[in-house]
Amino acid sequence: MQQITFAKRMERIKGSEIREAIKLTLKPNMISFAGGLPAPEMFPVAEMKDAACHVMDETGAMAMQYATTEGFEPLREKIAVRMKEKYDITAVPQDILITNGSQQGLDFSGRLFLDEGDVVLFESPSYMGAFNAFQAYQPQFMEVPTDEDGMIPEALEKILQTTQRIKMIYVIPDFQNPTGRTWSLERRKAFLEVVNRFHIPVIEDNPYGELRYEGKAIPSLKSMDTEGLVIFLGSFSKILAPGYRIGWICAAPEILQKYVFLKQGADLQPSTISQMEISRFMELYDLDAHVERIRALYGKRRTLMLDTMEAVFPKNIKFTRPHGGLFTWVELPPQMDARELLKKCVEKNVAYIPGGAFFPEGGKENTFRMNFSNMPEDKIVEGIRRMGEVLREELL
Amino acid sequence: MQQITFAKRMERIKGSEIREAIKLTLKPNMISFAGGLPAPEMFPVAEMKDAACHVMDETGAMAMQYATTEGFEPLREKIAVRMKEKYDITAVPQDILITNGSQQGLDFSGRLFLDEGDVVLFESPSYMGAFNAFQAYQPQFMEVPTDEDGMIPEALEKILQTTQRIKMIYVIPDFQNPTGRTWSLERRKAFLEVVNRFHIPVIEDNPYGELRYEGKAIPSLKSMDTEGLVIFLGSFSKILAPGYRIGWICAAPEILQKYVFLKQGADLQPSTISQMEISRFMELYDLDAHVERIRALYGKRRTLMLDTMEAVFPKNIKFTRPHGGLFTWVELPPQMDARELLKKCVEKNVAYIPGGAFFPEGGKENTFRMNFSNMPEDKIVEGIRRMGEVLREELL
Repeated sequence: MQQITFAKRMERIKGSEIREAIKLTLKPNMISFAGGLPAPEMFPVAEMKDAACHVMDETGAMAMQYATTEGFEPLREKIAVRMKEKYDITAVPQDILITNGSQQGLDFSGRLFLDEGDVVLFESPSYMGAFNAFQAYQPQFMEVPTDEDGMIPEALEKILQTTQRIKMIYVIPDFQNPTGRTWSLERRKAFLEVVNRFHIPVIEDNPYGELRYEGKAIPSLKSMDTEGLVIFLGSFSKILAPGYRIGWICAAPEILQKYVFLKQGADLQPSTISQMEISRFMELYDLDAHVERIRALYGKRRTLMLDTMEAVFPKNIKFTRPHGGLFTWVELPPQMDARELLKKCVEKNVAYIPGGAFFPEGGKENTFRMNFSNMPEDKIVEGIRRMGEVLREELL
Repeated sequence: MQQITFAKRMERIKGSEIREAIKLTLKPNMISFAGGLPAPEMFPVAEMKDAACHVMDETGAMAMQYATTEGFEPLREKIAVRMKEKYDITAVPQDILITNGSQQGLDFSGRLFLDEGDVVLFESPSYMGAFNAFQAYQPQFMEVPTDEDGMIPEALEKILQTTQRIKMIYVIPDFQNPTGRTWSLERRKAFLEVVNRFHIPVIEDNPYGELRYEGKAIPSLKSMDTEGLVIFLGSFSKILAPGYRIGWICAAPEILQKYVFLKQGADLQPSTISQMEISRFMELYDLDAHVERIRALYGKRRTLMLDTMEAVFPKNIKFTRPHGGLFTWVELPPQMDARELLKKCVEKNVAYIPGGAFFPEGGKENTFRMNFSNMPEDKIVEGIRRMGEVLREELL
């Protein structure tokens, strides 16, 4: 049979290990620390049902109809207010475009900035879903050296000085995926100073910022952006629920307008009904109080996971102690391979995500990512216990 | 201030005239034949509210959680059954990927097949939303001569023989947007014969196929596809409601797998809750009976619009008499400009979409598209009456 000719980009596009891992978690009895799933028992099901009933009773036909590409105005207003409250970002509703989760903001960012061969800079490691989104635009990926306080500004400056065709920098300054790390205020300031000098757009991906369990909030990059270079991606997935697929982009007007055009071509508009339900929920109920309950639970699970790992894992295994978010990042001794280890763990019905795929330039196979938000406390303890057994066997 | 460098593709990407027209229709007192909006009074609001309550009561936490990229299995099953019943297409659920309306299927098709400079073939005219989707991949657009029975196979063959880099053919064989035309069975057979010989993928966009008001259904291209070349795009937007943003792609397994990877990178997955609500609606209620009611109403409106145009418009103005769908296509005398005419119509609070933007290579400004599904009967008569006044003044 003759072959169909696909676009060149398709050679680079493959399935996401995270999405495959979510399938794995559907196995009964599996204790999964793999996905980045919220705790389903925290979803405000009765409240969202009530919000849905209000929407259908009050404005049902409008909720089922086509609407504007930019998004539902009352929701954009609430997001603008929330951006100020939570991140000290001054925005009007017209600065907000509603997207299908912040993942769509990543796709559109690649589409807006990247020609084939252009360079994107990342923390090392970084969110593999961003790589998957950007691959469609055939860029080169480059890692900027990063430590526990964030991207290292001197290293960034050197790369900007010596590298052609850098078109954007992708960062997650708060409770990073996969490491759980948060950039210090000093690093944020130094980063922006370099970025402003080289005038490079920055994608600030912030799905976890509200999920802080200790310490004080640090100002977002966008709140300190004086040049209109920072594009902020937000999401309801982690503070409310991911099943609605509602996130947003906040950017300077001349940039946001281009994102709006991309949204039109890509899928016309966000779901009218999902937007109206979330908006109505925020009128009927207290989202802040809900986030507070999530923080209490996830904070407890984080501490339990870290304490159990501390007690159970061999001492030469290192891991981060995140102040928020969903993940901790584990580093095995250099000779170990987390993909091989995963096979043994899955035999014992416990799973995580190997870390190699989180390195834009490929790399450290002795690392893995652990999620602490999704599993109940007893399974966290039992899962870590099983992993401890495997690790001790391997390290004998 | 320094400029930010956007990707080259952004030079080609602009706002959609259709989306701007939807904004226009929000003006009070406007009689709009511009958008392709369903009649909101037909939306089964109470039934969808009931379906939403069932979903939240029975499986609320699941509906709010992340789920698989491919889509909700029970919905894919129902779509597969419906494809057989309505279009004689033999498909299993694994052949179906759920998308954000069929517009996202267009975006992904461009992404899957098009490198910069590749050629896409279209009917003349064709759906401008497809141009907007494909532009992101920087192809060349080429029109294939088309008459009232569809694309002309001999013309298609000649173009395929003499043109390099043709990567796909985009067609709407049933009640085409914008002309309302339907391809004859003979044309479909001849088209596929040519396509099979040259082995070129075909995007069969079919959002309107179930909305037939006279005549007998004609088999879909996909139902006659022996080579796995036809990619079928379906949608709930016109048979149920567009606000949920739920459509689908049906394609051969090796092609569908690639679409799934693209969906993962683009926005991870379709809305869990929208999918479950539509699926539950189809279990609780009779979608066929609902479509029957839509057909009765739209058929009446179509006939009323055509009869009124016949009675009121000057005789040298031609228009199509579609057997289904949402649109009729109007051709003014060659010297007239439908964009100019629109300004005068909008002064009288009546609107349509100028036809020039529906020609992939640019073109006939003496044409426009009229929608007959959205406006109630009295407004159809009044709007056509006003347009008749403008036309008679212009043609004096």
